[in-house]
Amino acid sequence: MLNQTDVLTWWGHMHHDDVQDHVVDRVQKYVLNGMGLVVLHSGHESKIFKRLMGTSCDLKWREAAETERIWVSDPGHPIAEGLGDYVELPEEEMYGEPFYIPMPDDQVFISWFKGGEVFRSGCTFHRGRGKIFYFRPGHETYPTYYNPQVMHIIGNGVQWVAPNKGATISGRHHVVPIEAIPSKNGG
Amino acid sequence: MLNQTDVLTWWGHMHHDDVQDHVVDRVQKYVLNGMGLVVLHSGHESKIFKRLMGTSCDLKWREAAETERIWVSDPGHPIAEGLGDYVELPEEEMYGEPFYIPMPDDQVFISWFKGGEVFRSGCTFHRGRGKIFYFRPGHETYPTYYNPQVMHIIGNGVQWVAPNKGATISGRHHVVPIEAIPSKNGG
Amino acid sequence: MLNQTDVLTWWGHMHHDDVQDHVVDRVQKYVLNGMGLVVLHSGHESKIFKRLMGTSCDLKWREAAETERIWVSDPGHPIAEGLGDYVELPEEEMYGEPFYIPMPDDQVFISWFKGGEVFRSGCTFHRGRGKIFYFRPGHETYPTYYNPQVMHIIGNGVQWVAPNKGATISGRHHVVPIEAIPSKNGG
Amino acid sequence: MLNQTDVLTWWGHMHHDDVQDHVVDRVQKYVLNGMGLVVLHSGHESKIFKRLMGTSCDLKWREAAETERIWVSDPGHPIAEGLGDYVELPEEEMYGEPFYIPMPDDQVFISWFKGGEVFRSGCTFHRGRGKIFYFRPGHETYPTYYNPQVMHIIGNGVQWVAPNKGATISGRHHVVPIEAIPSKNGG
Repeated sequence: MLNQTDVLTWWGHMHHDDVQDHVVDRVQKYVLNGMGLVVLHSGHESKIFKRLMGTSCDLKWREAAETERIWVSDPGHPIAEGLGDYVELPEEEMYGEPFYIPMPDDQVFISWFKGGEVFRSGCTFHRGRGKIFYFRPGHETYPTYYNPQVMHIIGNGVQWVAPNKGATISGRHHVVPIEAIPSKNGG
Repeated sequence: MLNQTDVLTWWGHMHHDDVQDHVVDRVQKYVLNGMGLVVLHSGHESKIFKRLMGTSCDLKWREAAETERIWVSDPGHPIAEGLGDYVELPEEEMYGEPFYIPMPDDQVFISWFKGGEVFRSGCTFHRGRGKIFYFRPGHETYPTYYNPQVMHIIGNGVQWVAPNKGATISGRHHVVPIEAIPSKNGG
Repeated sequence: MLNQTDVLTWWGHMHHDDVQDHVVDRVQKYVLNGMGLVVLHSGHESKIFKRLMGTSCDLKWREAAETERIWVSDPGHPIAEGLGDYVELPEEEMYGEPFYIPMPDDQVFISWFKGGEVFRSGCTFHRGRGKIFYFRPGHETYPTYYNPQVMHIIGNGVQWVAPNKGATISGRHHVVPIEAIPSKNGG
Repeated sequence: MLNQTDVLTWWGHMHHDDVQDHVVDRVQKYVLNGMGLVVLHSGHESKIFKRLMGTSCDLKWREAAETERIWVSDPGHPIAEGLGDYVELPEEEMYGEPFYIPMPDDQVFISWFKGGEVFRSGCTFHRGRGKIFYFRPGHETYPTYYNPQVMHIIGNGVQWVAPNKGATISGRHHVVPIEAIPSKNGG
């Protein structure tokens, strides 16, 4: 099935550890070969996201149905296309810094929470030929995914991570030299 | 004229200092507002490139009609689309490291020179809403720009830096608070 | 005087344009040669910061004596040494995203403001041999610079941007080839 | 033992797969908590390096005892301290681009090989609180590690990745709000 997938979106709540390692291996391989990946909300704890980041991907959290305001910090980014200054969600779970990820390639969104925290809520990464977009909102009991702007951002994200053709690289082992290596060097 | 320009390509040899500062100001403003910029070869010394980088953009150089081999270091990048492992130019001017630029966003190409040097010959940068692609080849006396692969890369670069729509940001000064600021804070 | 300076801290309020361009040229040159630079608060609008960034360095702002909470987003960074989760300032000017800078090398702090905004309030950059730390707080009428934690962070920042020795690079022009360039190449 | 380790250097030739996953888990955890890691030569294929990068870390290679010239591309970097323009190794194994790693934080060295290839031979990364330095030379049959400049670079690298104190972050789960969340929000 992955074979015919251009972009995979990953949302998960609790059963991250039930995803078997050989499945994670396979998904990682596809991403490194160019398949796009959109990781949503608690997908930050998924094995595949942690595998691609190399870090714990930990964060602070709280469920208190509080206001989240998602600020655009990179207005020229294609994933922010069509938005204004921010997107406001009246009731969301809070995620707070520090978010233990490698430094993102682009910092598209940063969130403000009523209870006093901030979070890097829209981040992009390149891994191999694959593009990854992490997007924070989406608690399982708040109706975030019915918000038209959230849906719009996810749509932008899917388009942004979509695969593109690149260069064709030849075999890697016992590579034949292109230039002469003098025998004094033993070559 | 800049008003109707999507992508500006900049090549220059010697008269960089004849470009007046107010012209540089204008081009910079357009790039920061989204106009794409492709900087070729000795354009590394142009005022506009140095302005956008904030560094000297200096490098080592030599004119000895030597072989340059431009290796693809980011095979999944759209600017490398359609290439193989490398592009070889039989006679080129040498540019050598250190290349005094900020760390690029993407390292698309790295060059090998017969005389013994290396160079980061394909680099991308984001500045404001604008995308910038620096591409090394193009000495004024070697026929580099007739090389079909070089032309192909420049074409890919032009497409990659092309403007996209983003978010619409409101005014910046004396911003009205969204949330109430208690008067004990004096607000 | 710059000759004997290891680290320059830059704070400015209104008269940025009175700094003459040839002074900016000189300070830039020193930074590129390794002098550390700590840019504070409204120094984001200084000519030297804009010169080194290549962007407008614009942002949103408001004076309403509101709470700022500066979150540590990179807990392992030397500039965050000795802090807890955050530093709270009861009354500060607000700066809000988007902050028009190139993507920072490290994102040390992100601020929350009572009025509803967020801001990347601690950012590092490398330009040439110089290190730069931008730190947001410091309004001219709020007593921010008497806050012991703010002073501690500025101290950490000064130490972090301090110059270090590096490599010694030789002349750049008409570089003699290290390897033989065959005459068929015309060299 | 890891408990008392500040910096771990990792070199390996063939038996990468014999390192058990639970050992990799442990080393990763220590790096994320601040232990420095210097990865040498074929350590690029170690489980721990691939774990921390999230990518395949693949590359081209050839054993032909050819000249490697390691150019300094970031002369101000502490790891390049005390060097000149480059370090030359008369006989080394070749590693060639593309090197399938995430974009490094600093690009300290880039190598030239007699046979015609290039390679990003000195790269730094931050993962959690840990710093990582990958350094290319060190084939098991060429006497690279007796080269004084190579030893000097490894020494610089060990110092650069050494742990530093940072911020002390509190518990992450069920975080108590700092600001009041109005009950209309259900908090």
